[in-house]
This record gives sequence, structure tokens and C-alpha cells, in this order.
Amino acid sequence: MEIGIVLYIIGVALLIEGGLMVVPGACALIYGESVMPYVLTALICFIIGIAFTRKKPESGFLFSREGYVATGLTWVALAFTGMLPFLFSGASDSVVDAVFETISGYTTTGSSIFTSVEDLPKGILMWRSFMHWIGGMGILVFMLAIVPFTGGTQMNIMKAESPGPSISKIVPRAQDSAKILYQIYGAMTIGLILILLLLKMPLFDALCISFGAAGTGGFSILNTGCADYTIPQQVAITIGMIAFGVNFNFYYFLLIKKLGLAFSMEEVRGYILIILVAIGLISVDLVFKGIYTSVPIAVKDAAFHVGSIITTTGYATTDCNLWPNLSQGILILLMFIGACAGSTGGGIKVSRILLMAKAYKRELSIALHPNIVKKVHMDGKSAGEDVLRNTGVYIFIYFVIFAVSVLIVSLDGFDWTTTFTAVAATFNNIGPGFGVVGTMGNFSSLSDLSKWVLSLDMLIGRLEIFPIMLLFVKNTWRKF
Amino acid sequence: MEIGIVLYIIGVALLIEGGLMVVPGACALIYGESVMPYVLTALICFIIGIAFTRKKPESGFLFSREGYVATGLTWVALAFTGMLPFLFSGASDSVVDAVFETISGYTTTGSSIFTSVEDLPKGILMWRSFMHWIGGMGILVFMLAIVPFTGGTQMNIMKAESPGPSISKIVPRAQDSAKILYQIYGAMTIGLILILLLLKMPLFDALCISFGAAGTGGFSILNTGCADYTIPQQVAITIGMIAFGVNFNFYYFLLIKKLGLAFSMEEVRGYILIILVAIGLISVDLVFKGIYTSVPIAVKDAAFHVGSIITTTGYATTDCNLWPNLSQGILILLMFIGACAGSTGGGIKVSRILLMAKAYKRELSIALHPNIVKKVHMDGKSAGEDVLRNTGVYIFIYFVIFAVSVLIVSLDGFDWTTTFTAVAATFNNIGPGFGVVGTMGNFSSLSDLSKWVLSLDMLIGRLEIFPIMLLFVKNTWRKF
Repeated sequence: MEIGIVLYIIGVALLIEGGLMVVPGACALIYGESVMPYVLTALICFIIGIAFTRKKPESGFLFSREGYVATGLTWVALAFTGMLPFLFSGASDSVVDAVFETISGYTTTGSSIFTSVEDLPKGILMWRSFMHWIGGMGILVFMLAIVPFTGGTQMNIMKAESPGPSISKIVPRAQDSAKILYQIYGAMTIGLILILLLLKMPLFDALCISFGAAGTGGFSILNTGCADYTIPQQVAITIGMIAFGVNFNFYYFLLIKKLGLAFSMEEVRGYILIILVAIGLISVDLVFKGIYTSVPIAVKDAAFHVGSIITTTGYATTDCNLWPNLSQGILILLMFIGACAGSTGGGIKVSRILLMAKAYKRELSIALHPNIVKKVHMDGKSAGEDVLRNTGVYIFIYFVIFAVSVLIVSLDGFDWTTTFTAVAATFNNIGPGFGVVGTMGNFSSLSDLSKWVLSLDMLIGRLEIFPIMLLFVKNTWRKF
Repeated sequence: MEIGIVLYIIGVALLIEGGLMVVPGACALIYGESVMPYVLTALICFIIGIAFTRKKPESGFLFSREGYVATGLTWVALAFTGMLPFLFSGASDSVVDAVFETISGYTTTGSSIFTSVEDLPKGILMWRSFMHWIGGMGILVFMLAIVPFTGGTQMNIMKAESPGPSISKIVPRAQDSAKILYQIYGAMTIGLILILLLLKMPLFDALCISFGAAGTGGFSILNTGCADYTIPQQVAITIGMIAFGVNFNFYYFLLIKKLGLAFSMEEVRGYILIILVAIGLISVDLVFKGIYTSVPIAVKDAAFHVGSIITTTGYATTDCNLWPNLSQGILILLMFIGACAGSTGGGIKVSRILLMAKAYKRELSIALHPNIVKKVHMDGKSAGEDVLRNTGVYIFIYFVIFAVSVLIVSLDGFDWTTTFTAVAATFNNIGPGFGVVGTMGNFSSLSDLSKWVLSLDMLIGRLEIFPIMLLFVKNTWRKF
């Protein structure tokens, strides 16, 4: 383990985080709140950041192992520094609560321990939402876009932080990919902000909601979530969320005018298909069971929540605990499916589901004709056996971590729906679950043990298991 | 598709089933009940069986495809003929209920639609339990043991019906393996019957309970399950259930005095370890939460239910709905883990879990050192990449079928615990779940749609997905 380069990367990330304090700080200033929480946090970040980056590492190259460790530890470091504004502002007086909220922010989960977000300072609300935006595309990818690293280093950071079964590099150089990604991301976010402003949403709300939708985060700034926004605003948020759950390669293809490539992407087609089917089924269920009398309103709420859950955002316009079983069940299933790889969303990812479904079809063929030789194809290219193997193992260990988490959280004694969906909602980086942690509830009543476990689950979910799990493996820390 | 040989195999199976009617028939005779239900059923089985076997198939050889189809269709045929005694005796007047109960019997699930089993004729109770015994080791394996087939035929039947990630052939010839398996199985069953008789259990109970334990079935013959048996009897049943969940290769190794091979089997060691840990945790939980005041009784009930659930038997001595969350959660987790491959138990199987855990460890190594070349080893031998690939796909499609089933059953409007565990208990061939379908409840209040879906789940679970799923694939039915 080359610990020098790992510390250096953590240091750079902390320097950036210190700089980001400008955003909530400015917000506090405008609303006449104390800026001290953000100034103090920035100071602490700068001091540690400078200490860690004082010595430039001898070898500028980052191997796979160091890439994973740097990614995992950077996110842990950000969790424990990003929580400082919550403590300094008095918004929370519990370290575990502040850590939970911060990890929920950076991992774009959006589960909250605050019982009344409307009582929080505007600066804190802005910081929560802004963490979503930074965490969505990845703080290390952000770092890549602005700090020059050597080629191998870039690749191994992208690999560890980007969601999906294989690395989606848009262009050969990882740094260029990172820049393009953030440009698309930034432009789309600004687009959403402008649309919401056009639809007469207040600026502060438009900013926070757009940051949350872009990062597929889901922290709300009103106690009623998104229920009090107008119908056009809700529709705009719906479309925004779904757009940010699309694989960003799609937008890159659009940008370079390769429309054919864009619209033939199997993952995007599968993603849209799942969304349409889910909206259809839920709308029928809601109307048929008499929950809604107006079909358009039923479709609007169905679309909002399907978009919110499959993209793992977690915004809500209504209390889904009141929905019938089938609708709840579809939403719970969508929690696991998640968004596209190479998007800002979480979950297992549509591409993993597609890959495994194709691998299953192949196994059926092999069962019929044992001597058949067949490759699994995706977007016209054959998927490597290593990717398939890794995907199978990924889904297995995903459910193991899920099961262990459910057992630990079950100690709190909540009903199974609450326990099960609390883990599903955090591990998949969604936000609200059902029962006590439902769309109109929050995570405040969970025990500290559960909050720590769910915080870890959010990190494991966002970084797709390996960067965090490797931190607990002895071989990771060996000299060679 | 060589339909001739498939029909021939179904025919032989029906002839055997007709012959098996001797068992419940004799029981009915002894207890002075009408034997007509069993005579009529036998007649129908014989008529169809003779029609199907009248023409010996030209090629005696069964390819992989025909092996799967013959296995899948034989089980379907047995479901629709094995249900006749329920209808003829008037025990049930609903086809779906009778099919559900029969599939539950043959697949050794043990979920029942009867609200009061004590009101059933003794012949029917015997038939339910005897189906467990036949289905446990497999009716086609039974057929192999007594009917001569050519070599390829034998292999492809064993492959399709035997549980586990790879075929566990004890000796080179499949027919010899089948004979040895049934000899061990029979001897162990007789052993358990004798022990229960020694412990003063009535003969009828000893027979039914032993058939259910041996096949890891779980139909009870008392409305209170196993609660009214004495503690020594309950302990004997516990040990019996756990013994039948062990990979039968273990017993073969004992038989040929290869103790070293037997006790080094990783799957058996993992299985025992999981059982001990689960018993320990649940005992502590039960005593700590004040459910039990006596530690030995807590351990006894914990062991009974852990053994009952991990082996997917489903016997019960108490109402587990009253147990605390953690204990319930552990039992639910055990439902999915299941017993050993090559045993009579269901679930995902310990060996699949072990294989995937080892594959996960390998992925961690590869993440650290991408150029490493590493094989996954099991019992000292390297596991083929095809087995690992198939296992990953298996677990994926397992959860897909599970999720779709939960959604359909959710239409019934039960609470999520009932819905979720009803599917878990049938798909894993266990028997009772929690909530309405708990250890002291039954499946009678579910809708017909749910009963059909759960019946299919029981078949899919018992035959490990492929033999049933292939029936729905177009290529299966193509000429070549």
C-alpha cells in the first residue's frame, strides 16, 4: 500500500471541500445567518488538506489497489468533515446524526434524521442539497476534472467511483471524460433551475430542488416534501429526475450528434421501458383501488414517484404508505433495480439487470444444448466473461450485505416493512422507505447502532461495495 | 424435441405413482376408511401410464433438453394425478387447493390449505406425508433406481432433478448412485421411525413425522404441529431434520469408511456452523427478550426451528410470530440459505452460498491486483468457471422470480410480512412463513391466483428453476 498518494488524494479532496463552503456560506450571508459554521469547517478542511498535500508523493501513479483505498477513505474523510456545519450551526448535537445526514447527502441518498427541515438555517439546507450535487457525479471525478493526475491514476479513480458493471469512459483520457461529464451535468442542472424558475418556483427552492434532482439525492427543504409545489413544477421535477438517471454516455452521443448510437443504447431503452410499465401499472392500481378519482393526477403522482424511486432520488408528493400493496411493491422493486450505470443514480443498475437477464437466457440455451458456444452481447458488443462473473458476484454480495443490515436494524424492534425498506432505501441511496421511514416520515427514531449501519450501507451502496469492503481486507494493507 | 421418450418417462412415473397408492390405501383399510379414492387414483394412473409406455421409444437415449423437459413435465403430471385422492375423498372440493396441497407434498414444501388437519382421513394424512418421502429424494431418481435406462438418459435425469450447483454423482453409473442414495435414505428413515417408536410416539405419527422429516417436507398431522410431542421426541425430530439436510455424499463417505473425506466436506462444515450460530443467536435473543424463562427450553425450541427452517422442513413447536424481530429475521434468512446440495432440502443451498462467497473473495483479490490469476477451490478441487457462472445467474433469476411472485401475491392485500414470507416459504420449499401463513396458520385464505403462483413457485424451487422455466421457452419445443 502506497499510503503517500492515498493521503495526497484525501488532502486534495478536503481542500476542495473547504472551498465548497463558499456555497452554503454565501447563502447564510444572504439570509443574515451566521457564517461561522462554514468558515470554521473550511478552516479545518484547509488545515488537514494542506498537511496531507504538503509532501507530493514520489510516484504519481496510482495502482488499482490504491485507487480503491483512496476512493473509500476520501468518502469517509468527507463524511466526517462535511458533518461539521451541522454541529457548528447547532442544527444537530449528535455526531451520529450529523454523520448520517452528511453521508446521506454525499451519497445522494436523501434519508434525513431531521424531523422538521423547515426549522433549519437556509445555509444548512443549501449545504445538504449541494452535497447531493457534488456526490452525484462523484467528488473524485470532480477532482479529476480540475486537478491533473497521471493516466493510470485517473483510470483507477474513475473505476473505483463510477457506478456500473464496467467503466464507462466517454473518451480515451479519463480526465477528459471527467470534464465532459461535469460539463453535461452542469449544463443540465442549470437547465432544470431555469425551467423551475420559469414555472415561478422561488430561487432558493429551485436551486436546492435542482441540486437534489441532478444528484438524484432527495433531501427536501419543506416538511411536506414536494407536495406543495404546483403541478407543472412537479412534472418538471419528474422529467428532471428521470433525465439524470440516464447513462450520461447517452447525452455525450447526443452532443457529438451520434443519434443512432444514443437511441440504440439498450440500457437506456430498458430504463425507459421499466419506467413506462411501472407508471402504467401503478396508475391503474391507484385508480382501480379508488385512491385517486382523477386519472391525470394519478398518472402525475405515479410518474413522480416512479421517477423518484428508480432514479433513487427520493422526492415525494404524497404519503405512499397510503398506496395499495401492488403499487408499494412495484416501488420497492424499483428501489433495487435503480437507475442506469454512468448516471448519478444508485441501486443495482439497469445494465447489471440486463446483463444478468442475457446471461440467464444463455444458460437456458446451454441447458438445451450443452455444447453450444455463445457470447452475451450488449449494445452490439460482446460483454467480457469477467464483467459477467463480477456482476454475478456483485449481486450475491449485495444481498448478503443487505440481509446482515436488515438483521442488525431489526434489533430496533420496528415492523418488518420499516426495517426492510429502511435498509433498501439507504443501501440503494434512495431516501425514504415505507412505514416509519416513509415519504412523510424520517430516520430520527432509529437507534444509533442502526444509524451507523445505515450510514455504512449508504457508502457501500454509492461506491458499489468494493472500495469500502476492501478497507476491511488484510491484504489491502500489506506492503506489496 | 424427442417427445416419445418424454412421454415414456412420464408414463413410467405414473405407473409408479399408481403403485404407491398401496400405502395410503392400506392405511385407509386399517383405519376402516374408504379405499375407493386410492383405488380410483391408481386406476387412472395405470390407464394413462400404460397408454404412454405402450410404445417403447425408438432411441433409448435422452439428451439434456429432453432430460429437463421430462423432469419438468413428470412433476406437473404427478401434481395433477396425485391430487385425485384429495378430491375423491372429499377432503377438498377445489382443484386449485388439491393441486396446491399435492405440489406442496411432492416438493416437500409442507404449506397446507387445510385449516384443521385432524379432521382429515388417516389415509389422506398418510398420502400427504408419503409424498414428502418420495419427493424428497426425487421421484425420477427413484425411477432410475428401479427401472433400467441407458447411461446418457440416467445422467440427464439426475442432472435435472438433483439439487445443487453441480451434479453429485456418488459413483460413475447414475443408476448405481440412485440405488445407493435410496438405500441410505431408506435406512435413515427407518432409523428415525424406530427412534420415535422407542420414545413412545404412536406408530402412525412416527411414520408420518419421519416421512416428513426425511423428505424435509413438514406437513403435520396435528393442528398444533409438533407442539404436543414430548421433549425427547422433539429433540429426536430436530436431529432427524438436520441429518436429512446434510449432503448425502457425506453418508456415502461414512459408509465406505472414508471418514477424512466425509468430515472435510466444506459444505457440511458450513451447514453445521450456520446452524450452531443461528441456534446460539436465537436462544440468546429469546431469553434476553424474556420470551422464555428456561434456557434449555429456549435452546430446544431454537434448535427445533433452526433445524426445521434451514433444512426447509417446516415443522413447528410454537408460534414464531410471537418471537422477537432478530429471531424472526434469522429464520427468514435461513429460509433463503437452505440445506446442503445433494440432500432432500430446498433453498439456495449452502454450497451455492459458499461458492459465491469464495468467488467474492477472489473478486476482492482481483480488485487489489488486476493481473492475478486465481481459481476458486471447493473441497480441495478447483470449481469450474461454468459452475460459478451458472451459480451467479441462478441467484439472480432466483430473486427475479421471487420479486415477481411477491408482486402478484401482494394483490391479495395481506401485510408485507405475510406476502413476503408466503413466497419465501413456498419458493424455498419450507412450509410456514410468518403472519397469516405463520407456523400456527395456513394458506387457505389466499386467493386462487396466489395459490397457482405459489404452486408454480414450489415446483420451480424444488427443481431449481431450469426444468420448469425451460417449458416456457420456444426453443425447447423446436424439432432440433
